[in-house]
Amino acid sequence: MAILGATGAVGTELLELLASRNFPLAELKLLASERSAGKRLNFRGESLLVEPVSDRAFDKVDIVLASAGGSTSKTWAGVAVDKGAVVIDNSSAFRMNPDVPLVVPEVNPQAAAKHKGIIANPNCTTILMSVAVWPLHQVQPIKRIVAATYQSASGAGAKAMEEVKIQTSAILQGQEPVAEVLPYPLAFNLFPHNSPLTDSGYCEEELKMVNETRKIFGNQDIRITATCVRVPVLRAHSEAINLEFDTPFSPDAAREILSQAPGVKLVENWQTNYFPMPMEASGKDEVLVGRIRQDISHPCGLELWLCGDQIRKGAALNAVQIAELLVEKNLMRPLSVVNG
Amino acid sequence: MAILGATGAVGTELLELLASRNFPLAELKLLASERSAGKRLNFRGESLLVEPVSDRAFDKVDIVLASAGGSTSKTWAGVAVDKGAVVIDNSSAFRMNPDVPLVVPEVNPQAAAKHKGIIANPNCTTILMSVAVWPLHQVQPIKRIVAATYQSASGAGAKAMEEVKIQTSAILQGQEPVAEVLPYPLAFNLFPHNSPLTDSGYCEEELKMVNETRKIFGNQDIRITATCVRVPVLRAHSEAINLEFDTPFSPDAAREILSQAPGVKLVENWQTNYFPMPMEASGKDEVLVGRIRQDISHPCGLELWLCGDQIRKGAALNAVQIAELLVEKNLMRPLSVVNG
Repeated sequence: MAILGATGAVGTELLELLASRNFPLAELKLLASERSAGKRLNFRGESLLVEPVSDRAFDKVDIVLASAGGSTSKTWAGVAVDKGAVVIDNSSAFRMNPDVPLVVPEVNPQAAAKHKGIIANPNCTTILMSVAVWPLHQVQPIKRIVAATYQSASGAGAKAMEEVKIQTSAILQGQEPVAEVLPYPLAFNLFPHNSPLTDSGYCEEELKMVNETRKIFGNQDIRITATCVRVPVLRAHSEAINLEFDTPFSPDAAREILSQAPGVKLVENWQTNYFPMPMEASGKDEVLVGRIRQDISHPCGLELWLCGDQIRKGAALNAVQIAELLVEKNLMRPLSVVNG
Repeated sequence: MAILGATGAVGTELLELLASRNFPLAELKLLASERSAGKRLNFRGESLLVEPVSDRAFDKVDIVLASAGGSTSKTWAGVAVDKGAVVIDNSSAFRMNPDVPLVVPEVNPQAAAKHKGIIANPNCTTILMSVAVWPLHQVQPIKRIVAATYQSASGAGAKAMEEVKIQTSAILQGQEPVAEVLPYPLAFNLFPHNSPLTDSGYCEEELKMVNETRKIFGNQDIRITATCVRVPVLRAHSEAINLEFDTPFSPDAAREILSQAPGVKLVENWQTNYFPMPMEASGKDEVLVGRIRQDISHPCGLELWLCGDQIRKGAALNAVQIAELLVEKNLMRPLSVVNG
């Protein structure tokens, strides 16, 4: 196995997960850009050298976990696939490609079997929402989703997290916050998601929630709208989700279903007003779901609230789960073909 | 005129607004609880003594701006009315009372004329949303609203703002944040609004948005659902609003209407991804509105995003505007009746 982008926030999390989940590994290669190569990272008590990515780096590699951004994936995924590897790509480069399965293991594990060398890991907000609403969709098809997100700085990378801390410290000392990584100061502030805007008026992050959810669910009929917002939280995303069904969906039934759903943890204490919070979702595998209630504006509506660690389940964990699926279902490619 | 609750966050803002708007005042009495009485506050260059609230304190007072909480309003509003004053009450105590007009001057100024001594100032998130969507509702009735809010610490008072700063500072120094004013740490975190939960699963803050909006709009048919969330912003609330009409509402038409609407400032730069932010709404009179777009999940849907200073337009400014309306339309009560 190789990790491409080993030194990034998701790369660090991948290493931790491969170790803690005892992923069966013959060898682990850490790959990064020239700039980050030469660093050493700990893995299961060993110090591993980060190598610069190159054609040769993918020799005899069965699985590549790529998390170095879209352009790196576009450059190297084909090379890795040509050498016989399966690339599990965390970027948006291949997600909407009809030849590339887009997989959330709790939702559509069967899609992974159809891969032609690349499997895409969905967008973080999309993964979190999918895990939470898919079990309900199985019981009664969702007709429409109106989502509003509360996305942490970590979604924009480790540098954005650092910037928010520096800005916060400046404001507490009565100084002006400086924004360099993110477009505007995020400390004690918030703003609509900073991904590029499209002609529809939606930003790319919002359209990912729309289009990727439909692809993952294998259902082009679900109508989805979203407003994505960056908030001054360091880690873990939150989402207010309004669901519309064809017939009423009882909150108690939804609660019962979600309390047993894979990857979901029901967090609700109505007495103490205790529901999912990013503080508690950080570092957790599960998507925390709560505040399930009958939508008082629609007889067939259901409201819910979720928080999830978007570096973990929203990125690294989902990728490792896909890799586990490949091993378990024997979906790897015959390396001999290309090494011959 | 008297301000009841002069030393609080809204009280301070009321003083500032009465001065900056040159409100016609014969006398201004500052009233507060025994605990806060004795303090001195500056007003138009004068140092005014804060008096303890009492029966006699309302003698010869024409207007009372009350912002000392529901129980104080319940105790003193009747006394002030008996003495001939009009009470503009910022608490939730009388808002849903059918004998009490609930007024947003940009929306239903005519309702103020029907007062019987008390006029209620609506909830902050409700005022902000009302100002922004009423001009659209005038052109085409709104059928349904799905709202998600991003509410700042100041909504929970000055102590909550201070607590968030202390928590933030603690976290930056690697210490555990302590929550005493708010139920959970808000620094770098967020949680569903901490108002009491009702049997419906909605918290009181959410139901205020539902019920107060209907009363202000004089329309019980609008269906409204909301998810209210506290975010680690010091001041100014934000709201993601999804509107549903009976027929399509073009975003350009909405933009044109809102660019001329009273109390609204259109803030949209699609090239630079620049839209309303709490940082810029703080201290401003207007509700900033932007990201107006056709809802891609519904042919008759419209999405918009707003930020507004909930201490200013969401509380103090709205109250002062109501007082201005009373003066302008001569809606004050004859003081002689009760002073005789």
